[in-house]
Order: sequence, then C-alpha cells, then structure tokens
Amino acid sequence: MGLLVQHTLSVTVVCVISLLSLLRSSNSQQLSDKHSADETTERLAEREGASRGSSTCASETCESFGLTAFVGSTASLDLKCPSESNLGEDAALSLTILKSLGKNESLRPAPPVASCPTNIETPPWLLDDALTPIDKFFVRNNGDIPRRAMDQDSEGWTLTIDGIGVDGSRNFTLQQLKSFPTVTRKYPLQCAGHGRAGYRPQVGGNQWTLGAVGFAEWTGVLLKDILSYDPPEGFKGLKVLDNAVYLAWEGLDRHCEDTDAFAISRGVPIEKALDGYTMLAWEMNAETLPAAHGFPLRLIAPGYPGSAQGKWLKRLWVRDQVHDGPKMTGTSYRMPLQPLPPGHEGLTEEETSVIEEMPVYSIITSPPPCTQVKSGDSLTVRGKAWSGMGNVVMVEVSVDQGRTWTAAFLSPPVNKYAWQVWTVDIELPGKGYWEIYARATDEKGRVQPLMTPGWNPKGYLNNSVMKINVDVV
Amino acid sequence: MGLLVQHTLSVTVVCVISLLSLLRSSNSQQLSDKHSADETTERLAEREGASRGSSTCASETCESFGLTAFVGSTASLDLKCPSESNLGEDAALSLTILKSLGKNESLRPAPPVASCPTNIETPPWLLDDALTPIDKFFVRNNGDIPRRAMDQDSEGWTLTIDGIGVDGSRNFTLQQLKSFPTVTRKYPLQCAGHGRAGYRPQVGGNQWTLGAVGFAEWTGVLLKDILSYDPPEGFKGLKVLDNAVYLAWEGLDRHCEDTDAFAISRGVPIEKALDGYTMLAWEMNAETLPAAHGFPLRLIAPGYPGSAQGKWLKRLWVRDQVHDGPKMTGTSYRMPLQPLPPGHEGLTEEETSVIEEMPVYSIITSPPPCTQVKSGDSLTVRGKAWSGMGNVVMVEVSVDQGRTWTAAFLSPPVNKYAWQVWTVDIELPGKGYWEIYARATDEKGRVQPLMTPGWNPKGYLNNSVMKINVDVV
Repeated sequence: MGLLVQHTLSVTVVCVISLLSLLRSSNSQQLSDKHSADETTERLAEREGASRGSSTCASETCESFGLTAFVGSTASLDLKCPSESNLGEDAALSLTILKSLGKNESLRPAPPVASCPTNIETPPWLLDDALTPIDKFFVRNNGDIPRRAMDQDSEGWTLTIDGIGVDGSRNFTLQQLKSFPTVTRKYPLQCAGHGRAGYRPQVGGNQWTLGAVGFAEWTGVLLKDILSYDPPEGFKGLKVLDNAVYLAWEGLDRHCEDTDAFAISRGVPIEKALDGYTMLAWEMNAETLPAAHGFPLRLIAPGYPGSAQGKWLKRLWVRDQVHDGPKMTGTSYRMPLQPLPPGHEGLTEEETSVIEEMPVYSIITSPPPCTQVKSGDSLTVRGKAWSGMGNVVMVEVSVDQGRTWTAAFLSPPVNKYAWQVWTVDIELPGKGYWEIYARATDEKGRVQPLMTPGWNPKGYLNNSVMKINVDVV
Repeated sequence: MGLLVQHTLSVTVVCVISLLSLLRSSNSQQLSDKHSADETTERLAEREGASRGSSTCASETCESFGLTAFVGSTASLDLKCPSESNLGEDAALSLTILKSLGKNESLRPAPPVASCPTNIETPPWLLDDALTPIDKFFVRNNGDIPRRAMDQDSEGWTLTIDGIGVDGSRNFTLQQLKSFPTVTRKYPLQCAGHGRAGYRPQVGGNQWTLGAVGFAEWTGVLLKDILSYDPPEGFKGLKVLDNAVYLAWEGLDRHCEDTDAFAISRGVPIEKALDGYTMLAWEMNAETLPAAHGFPLRLIAPGYPGSAQGKWLKRLWVRDQVHDGPKMTGTSYRMPLQPLPPGHEGLTEEETSVIEEMPVYSIITSPPPCTQVKSGDSLTVRGKAWSGMGNVVMVEVSVDQGRTWTAAFLSPPVNKYAWQVWTVDIELPGKGYWEIYARATDEKGRVQPLMTPGWNPKGYLNNSVMKINVDVV
C-alpha cells in the first residue's frame, strides 16, 4: 500500500509539473501574440476543461460520491493575506501590465492574464480611500487601448452624435463640450463580472474576485444637456425624438486581433441617458482621463455595469431599437430570465435580458484579511456599500456566520449612486479564528445574499456577502 | 495555441487514467487485506494529499488567485440525483459489503470503502419512513463485526459491570437483564461525522454526506435501573458511588488489523448513564439486534454521538475519571475549544473537549433532489428534525437561498430525543431551477447554520442546512 501511494503521488507530481509547464509556455506566448477578449475567454474555458479533467483525480475519490448537497461552504474562494503575493504564475507579464498603465503593484491582472485586453483588479483592502486613486483603480478592457489615449492627444478628435432617434447630427470638439454647464459627481464604477470567480462550476471570462470596482470623481457634462439643447442664434441644436429607444456608443478602441473591428459597442436605454445622472466625463479625480480609463471622453452611467459606460468615445448613436453591437447580443452582459441549474448549457439570447441597474454590494476595506487582534481589544471594521438602484440604507456585520448581525454606522451618499462609507467597532467573542461578514441593504429592500446568487453562464452579478478572517490571540 | 491546449488536455487525461487505475488497484487490495480504521483514515488522507496535488492544475489557473473570500458557495457537495449511481469506482466491493450486511443496495459504503471496518450511509430520501427499516439503517464500525454477532449466538455471553465507581461487580446474562423492567423508546442514532464531506479543506475519515443517521425503536432496559438496584433477598446488588465519573464500555469487536486490541472503547459521563433515557438495548425495531448493530447488546445514549453508544457490549466499567480508551483521546470525537482556521494542523488533546450533546439537525426526505414539478403545482416538502438537547421547536424552509423562510408543520416528538416529522406545502415562484433549504431550531434556541460551521480536523458536527434542487417546468 505504501508503495502504491508513493507511486500515485509521484505520478501526480509529474502531472502537475507537465501541466504547469504547458500552461506557462502558453502564457508566455501572450506577450507577443494579441488575443481578442472572446478568444481569451475561450482559452480560459479550455484551461478550465483541462483543470476539471485533472481534478477528477480528487473528486473521484471523495466529492463525486456526494449524494446531495449542503448549502454553505466557507471557502468558495481561498483567503489570501495581503502579505502573500497577489500574482500567479504569470507574475512577470502581470508586472509589465501593471507598470505600463501606472498601476499600483499590489493590484493584479485578473486571470487569464493577457497584454491585450488588459484587465486589472484591486484587492478590497486597497479600496479604503475616500476616492479610489487612479493608480488603484481597476481596469476592464475588451479591446486595445487606442494610440490617441496612450499619447493623451485630443488633436482633431470629435464626438459625433447622430442616429434616427435624434433630430440633427453634430460633431463636438472637447472644447465645445466643455462650453456646456460642467458637473462633478462621485460615482462607483463596477464590472458586472465583479465576483465571477465565486461561481461553481466556474465560468469562463476574467476571474474577478472582489476588486472590479472603484469610486471616482467624474467631471464632465450631463448627457441630457447635450442630447437636447437649444443652440445659440445661427447654430443647429439637437433634439431626442419620440422614437428614440437606445443610446449606443462606439469608441476608438479596436478588437485585439482584428483592428478593423469593434471589440465592444454597447450603450444605455434612452431614459437612462436622459436621467440627469448620466454624464460624458473628461476628468477623473480632477485629472485628465488616463489612457486606460477612456481619454479623451467616456460615458458615465451610474448604477449600470461598467461595460455600458463606454470609453474613448467617438460616436453616440441614438437608435430606435435596443442596440445590437458587439457584447450586446448572445449572453453578453445578460442575465437569464429563469433561474438556471449550475452549469446549464445552451442558454439563448431570447432567454435573457440585458443587465441594467446593478444589485446591492458591499466590501470590507479594513482590516485586511489575516489580521491579528489582541483578545479583549476592540476592532474597527469598515468598508463601502453601494447599489445600482439608489441609496444603501443599512450595513450590518456578523461574526457568527450570519446568524446574528450588528448594524454599522453608515454615511449618507455625497450624491445619488455614490458609494457610502460604513464603520463599526466590534469585539470578538474569544480567542481563535473568526470570520467577519458584511452585508448591505438598499432603499428598495434588496439585501446582499449570504449564498452565491443564481448561477449564470457568464458569471455576472455575484453580490454575495464578503468575509475577512481575523485571529484573536 | 490550439495545439498546446490539446496537448494539455491529453496529458491531463493520461494523468487521470493513471491515477484512477492506481487507486483502483489499491482498492482491490482491500478485499483481501484487513485495514484498521486509523489506517483507513491515513490512506484517505494520503489519497487526498495526492488529490490536492493534482488539483493544483486547476487552482493555479483560477482559484488560488483569490484575494479574499465570498461567504457562500452553493455547491460544497455535488448534488446527485437518485437516478444516478450512488456507488463510486469501488462499486463491486461496495455491493459485496451491502449484501453481506443485508442492506438496501441504494445505500453506499462511505468512502474510503473497506470490508473492515464497514461503514455504510443512507441517502436522505431513503429516510422518509416513520422508523428507519434495518435494511436502510446506516452502519458505522471501527473494528470488525464479532463472530458471535454474525452467528446471532448469545450462548455463554455475559455483560460484566465493575469498576472503582460502583459498589459490587456482577455478570449479567441476557435473560437476567430481561428480568428488569423493559422499556421501548424511539431515538435517532447519528455519527458525529455526519456531514463531514462538506468541510473545506477536506479532512480524513469516512466521507459521510447526510446519511450517517437513522431512527429506530430500541427495546431494552434503562441503564439507571441496572447500575443501582436493590437485589432480591440473598442476592448482591449494585450501587454507583460518589466517586463515579464515567461509564466506559468494552465490546466484543476488535481492531481490523490486531485482533488482540480494541478499535474503540468509549462511554458517557456517569450523569448521562443515569439520566433515565440511556438504555441497554437488545432489540431494534422489534427485532433481535442485527449483527451490524450490536448483537447481543448495545448502549443507547440519545443525544450523544453514535460512537459513544457501544455495540456488542461485554463490559461496563464505572470509572473515577474520564475514560481514556481508544477513540477517547487525541482529537477523536473531540471538538476544538477555540475556533480554528480551516486546515489548522497540530491541534492537541488539551485544546479540545469530548463531544457530548449533539447540535440541532434536519434533513429533507421528500422529494428527492432533481425532482421535476409542473409550474403552478403545489409541492409537499417533508423531512425529519432532531437535536441532542431535546425538542425541536421550529422547522422552516426557504426557496430564496435563505433570505426568507416559511414555517413547516412540525410533529411533537413521540418521546424525548425522538426525531420529529415536518411537512410543508410550497409553490415555487416560477419556472426554472430552484433550491429548497430546510433548517431546524431546538428548544435551546440553537439554529442550524446556513454556512458550514467551524472547521475541525476530524470533520465533526457539520449541521449546516441541507438543500434539494427542483426543476419547475
């Protein structure tokens, strides 16, 4: 028996080494090749196929015997301490990407790591600032970063507004846009895939944990002021028509593999565009929009997923139908109309609806996981909470796995859709290992779930409760 | 890239096949060899080591990047439908074991599968009967099944009662025991490891899911009537002394590898022995105790883990200290005094306490998982609930992942510690995939947790909520 086990172990080691080296060689290719977002997703799915295959070694002996299921596991994602490296086997490429975009080296490209498109997330404990500094702000791209943005060059750039849903069409220079009344608003920006890595079975796409979100101050103009305005004498204005259904956008960015094609072209319903919150922004945290965040102009549609809030804008297209550009169709940024069994295949577009207002979320920004506290000491726990449907009205924390909850102090939002700071002093009941959960409730009565919410094939909208672990010594 | 992925996949397949065939050959050995319980546990731990190694293939690409953790996963154990085979790769040995003990072939030996000791669990949907029939009753053994039990031979057998904590010592024949007032009680019997397979990281030992429990009618004598009694004229009685601390037992069973040694010798505190509920039983469901369940006599200590309720009794030993037989010491059937980080190593006996009263549990016995329901139809959900501390006072079900709960009808217990039947008619909110959770609350206010409770190195007392899945079509 002993010999057999040894043999098993050594074969396993060989398997692991072979697989890792193969994966590594495929990764190093990424530096030279360019991959589209879709291909990156496929590659991950394939890798996961391989992984699932190999982890059969484990499940055959134990897990797949499971007759039925428990509800809750405490470890759908491994806890990592801030002291541990945040970068995986793609560390070299990851660092190159972070440096090239001026990002803090404690951030990490969300796997699968690629130089195009670049996708970078922020550990929650780096989101403790009042405003998220640009070097800590997550990045989600679908195609390349346009040359013009990298060069911060707006020379000759104009924004075109046209389409069957608008009376008149116009090109605006940045200077012309800045002649409209300027507004400054603080809004979170969040990827719909934030939390994706928590779904089981795992889905393809970037494996975001809890850091595809940030909170910035945006300066620009309200979209409603641009889309319908009375011009000065002798100039032509714009007017949204009754047939307008959707505000679509096109950007300067292109597909990583096909520089003639858009990687993404999405938008928002016309009502959202005109709601008095949706903006065209040219500044972020009082700086010119950085290259990775949409220079020279981006859409900000608070409460909607980041994918709707186009960067590097070139055209706003007022349509009389729901837009059907890349990443609007199929199952992209769409949720199933009916709850699906985990792992369901073959979901069609007709069985989905486009994600609009996001659910309620919170994160714990301090202390970080793996904190040590002296027995009897009080511990200040704080974080942020936000909702796509307006204000958060309550944040609570639990130290007993969600059996009982204690309300935190919650700041009012500085403006609608702003994330809200919460803080609470707690004392842990004794020595040992504790987990602290936080959950938010919004003004619509929506509460963050303890459990991972409904599985969906693209892994969107996982707003389940975040936890940190604390050792009381 | 395509080629690389193909290569990765095929290497993986080779890995899986090699590992499976190695594991299979090690399993077939079990039929001829005998393994002790401890060695079986070690073997599983070693296999898990191998598994963990190989599943690195998966975690390196995805999971181990996790910066922090979500609270809840919906799939800590795979859901298996009743239509799927319940037996793993050890199917042939498993069937042999089930048949040899007269068990229903829908039960399954809990992995690691071995012919000694035999360990068999029951799918929850086979626990729907008022009393669990013997052919559906789970089995947990630590050593062999004694020859005398297999032969149902009580000729010459006596039970010895002695020790420093009792005045006098005596041997009882079965006939003599039956001359005491006979009682019949209905009690659940449950292994402390019920639910073990839900812990992450996985722990060694039998991978019980939710079927290491059953509910039987026990006939015998109250232990308090035996331990202290006034004898008829001319005979010697027994009397428990003030120094008595623990009622230890020794059985006829022996270690699978060393037939001179006990595999297990445990007991209960003297107060529990004398509580008026604890029994010596010679009948189960009005039949002579079957071989696997302790013929000719077993201890029944309701509310305590099954491991305390010795089978094939030969001796009751009244001690002036907590008993220190096999499976009483180290971390066996003990829980950590302080909450531990998952995966903690090096827990010492001093940091633990012996498991006594069990927590509150419930199971859903009908419908089974993977049931289909027609939209608009009402669905009757029912099950059992019990607690080691007395009555269950409430059972609730949830169809929205534990956000809201509906109370079920709950029967009173037929006697203290009996499990209670609950039932509720629900209508699911729409078409699609739904999960039904059930949770119980006992008279001490203890509630089953949604999340897997505190990780412990032997994986005891996972009383988290059970779920089933239903498709509404």
